[in-house]
Amino acid sequence: MSFPKLPSRSENFAEWYNQLVLRAELADYAPVRGCMVIRPYGWALWENIQRALDKRFKATGHQNAAFPLLIPLSFFEKEKEHVEGFAPELAVVTHGGGKKLEEPLAVRPTSETIIGYMWSKWIRSYRDLPQLLNQWANVVRWELRTKLFLRTLEFYWQEGHTAHATRAEAEEETLRMLRVYEDFAVNEAAIPVVPGRKSESEKFAGAVTTYTIEAMMGDKRALQAATSHFLGQNFAKAFEIRYLDQNNQLQYVWTTSWGLSTRFIGAIIMVHGDDQGLRLPPRLAPIQVVVVPIWKSGDDEARILEAARNVRDRIASIVYREQPIRVHLDDRDNVTPGFKFNDWELRGVPVRVELGPRDLAAGTVTLARRDKPGKEGKQTVDMDALPEVLPRLLDDIHEGLYQQARAFLEANLHEPKTYEELKAVVRDGWALAWWCGSADCEARIKADTTATNRCIPLEQPEGQGTCIVCGRPAQVKAIFARAY
Amino acid sequence: MSFPKLPSRSENFAEWYNQLVLRAELADYAPVRGCMVIRPYGWALWENIQRALDKRFKATGHQNAAFPLLIPLSFFEKEKEHVEGFAPELAVVTHGGGKKLEEPLAVRPTSETIIGYMWSKWIRSYRDLPQLLNQWANVVRWELRTKLFLRTLEFYWQEGHTAHATRAEAEEETLRMLRVYEDFAVNEAAIPVVPGRKSESEKFAGAVTTYTIEAMMGDKRALQAATSHFLGQNFAKAFEIRYLDQNNQLQYVWTTSWGLSTRFIGAIIMVHGDDQGLRLPPRLAPIQVVVVPIWKSGDDEARILEAARNVRDRIASIVYREQPIRVHLDDRDNVTPGFKFNDWELRGVPVRVELGPRDLAAGTVTLARRDKPGKEGKQTVDMDALPEVLPRLLDDIHEGLYQQARAFLEANLHEPKTYEELKAVVRDGWALAWWCGSADCEARIKADTTATNRCIPLEQPEGQGTCIVCGRPAQVKAIFARAY
Repeated sequence: MSFPKLPSRSENFAEWYNQLVLRAELADYAPVRGCMVIRPYGWALWENIQRALDKRFKATGHQNAAFPLLIPLSFFEKEKEHVEGFAPELAVVTHGGGKKLEEPLAVRPTSETIIGYMWSKWIRSYRDLPQLLNQWANVVRWELRTKLFLRTLEFYWQEGHTAHATRAEAEEETLRMLRVYEDFAVNEAAIPVVPGRKSESEKFAGAVTTYTIEAMMGDKRALQAATSHFLGQNFAKAFEIRYLDQNNQLQYVWTTSWGLSTRFIGAIIMVHGDDQGLRLPPRLAPIQVVVVPIWKSGDDEARILEAARNVRDRIASIVYREQPIRVHLDDRDNVTPGFKFNDWELRGVPVRVELGPRDLAAGTVTLARRDKPGKEGKQTVDMDALPEVLPRLLDDIHEGLYQQARAFLEANLHEPKTYEELKAVVRDGWALAWWCGSADCEARIKADTTATNRCIPLEQPEGQGTCIVCGRPAQVKAIFARAY
Repeated sequence: MSFPKLPSRSENFAEWYNQLVLRAELADYAPVRGCMVIRPYGWALWENIQRALDKRFKATGHQNAAFPLLIPLSFFEKEKEHVEGFAPELAVVTHGGGKKLEEPLAVRPTSETIIGYMWSKWIRSYRDLPQLLNQWANVVRWELRTKLFLRTLEFYWQEGHTAHATRAEAEEETLRMLRVYEDFAVNEAAIPVVPGRKSESEKFAGAVTTYTIEAMMGDKRALQAATSHFLGQNFAKAFEIRYLDQNNQLQYVWTTSWGLSTRFIGAIIMVHGDDQGLRLPPRLAPIQVVVVPIWKSGDDEARILEAARNVRDRIASIVYREQPIRVHLDDRDNVTPGFKFNDWELRGVPVRVELGPRDLAAGTVTLARRDKPGKEGKQTVDMDALPEVLPRLLDDIHEGLYQQARAFLEANLHEPKTYEELKAVVRDGWALAWWCGSADCEARIKADTTATNRCIPLEQPEGQGTCIVCGRPAQVKAIFARAY
């Protein structure tokens, strides 16, 4: 059985992506248009993302809760911009238990409204603040153009929701969580990101300010990898969320929300993947090390297999970043070692451990890195050295993936000086350019190039310039790019 | 501020339950009838339940996945008994993105159909079997009479779904998972259960056989705490799930499903709770130990508070059953120690650690057990002894709660000899009685007493008898009880 090749990533990125998601068994299409099934390998990746984020949320004082899936339609009408943003995307339950409902219910697209409603019951005094909540949930948005992981009718995410006594506290929280996402992207997913602020036309429906981390995919498109919103008192006023302050005065609270979704799995695939398949960042990979026993006819299969089981058990007892290494033994007897190599490369396992008769005799194993093909990435080590070698190797692969992605981002982030230059570079890269702040100039770029304003990076150059579109004075530089 | 009392458990069990759920901040009513919000304290309990079960599922070879929320209505019609059972309970999405859908979609009430559909695509050969899947998910069933945790329109659960090559393997799996639930109930939740088989009229819609673990609540009603279904080839035939066996013959698979839901939280409340509030089983309690500093005016508050922080940190470094002890320091300055005692008793924290000026001087703390009121449950121990004392104390409380619940179950499980006796005992207890197996006799008991057939216990007496209703020969004893 020969191993079928993937479509080439450079020639057909979209088809490479779709085939890879299906063949690596991360996900599959569901019978309902735009919905997906997340298969065990994809869900294990999401569970690792959940664990890494949840630890950070708890360390910053947040607690998980669960708010209902079904929200009265009327709730959406209470915040003007929110309803404009979400009404066109709602899935609506009109019948329950065989009867038509008096009020139709929305399947939640996001939970600001229902949480706002509950807070209006729970919050009485300054002693009830801050409220620092998060939920891991599924949401539904009726998207027209869908793509596995990146845009599906139903998706999984976490949504953090917090309420504070003061504006300053809420703004601090918004930025704190943006930095949590950045830290997660860099140190768990090996993905470099640009933290920035969204323009008025790109911000969340109902937010005062939206912050984002933007990542560059392998085809140089941008992807909004997570967002953090300062909601001001918009929802507090819509839902009458008030508290008695220390002077016994009734005040509106200040709220935030922030989220990261299964779309992030799409980012991991598109940032790190190559023509052979996935390259999963070691700290999130469902399988960090795969053991492949190797024999030819005439070899003592049983002995090699037994030794491979021992190696698997030894590796499973090694701790990497406070958890046992996630190791899998591929003991299939119906495919060749070569087929297995290709298969695990497709699935992006960071380290392959090969064990053949010669290794067995010498008490060694051969390690092959997924991120470095061929001889360069191979080393033969003593079995007893594994507890020392493997954790270092996993860190090394993480760092290698990150540096590669970072170099790619830097190489393709251009600083055009003229509008003509901008139009040229956004065909195949990002443009960082002075922008006057007007929606007209953004719209013009979009109309001319399909590139959108991704963000105004938090890190700004000194001084000021003139808008790359209209030539008026500009205080900030923004990133323009085609995006997912 | 005095601490308001709960309604008495013995006088008004239903009102005691509702008030307790709300006041312990486990959950609250959502704006949509029959829906609930699970608050952080309740969700932390569910997360501990999830962790304890998920470990067991993975140890028995299962993998988690995520199947879609929205299922075409037509899927339910493929299995005749399944549609009869679930059609009346469906919530139906008829509109999406502002348009009427061509085919209405059900919000999943359970996932046999959608998983069956995907398996029909995924399973080709005997090498693809067994499929051992589980998902942690929300489901919606349009119930008319609802109650917090016990019966809500939306609830959270895990649903395991497996497919096997042979009938024997599938039956073995069904019973294996029943035993996993029993082990979880006994060893994590301190709840004694009776494992048994459901009668034909009580089984899951679409199952060949349904197994259950039944628990006795504090008001002596029964609660079905988890179920495990052998589905035969019913769904395999409805969804054409077939595989090529080793002889290249096309065969239908055999499937199972099994689930435990947030309803189990209701069981924990109703089995262990008392007039003072919750008594949470130590292995699942969100807070296992609460530290309450005590001072009177004139005492050195700052020093006591600092010592209390140290005690909190020391306890957090003690490992109990492979995890750091979950400890909370109650440093509120606006309520008295007495108020705090009542509050943490209401919330069911297993161990309270008191620290006052005298303790501070002596290097001791006072431990108070939630399960033993008054002096009997108090001991003063040296701070240095905590690493040894606390894990043993938590085990001891677990065992104490279990034995108490077990004694209660045994005291209230009667073996009536006549139908008149049965009618008397089910008013305030369970009846274990010979039953001929006919639905008529079950129905008669239900009509006369409102008690239902809870299960045919797996552990049966020797020999045989005569049906307690009709007097015909009976091979099995069944449990009849009023139930939630």
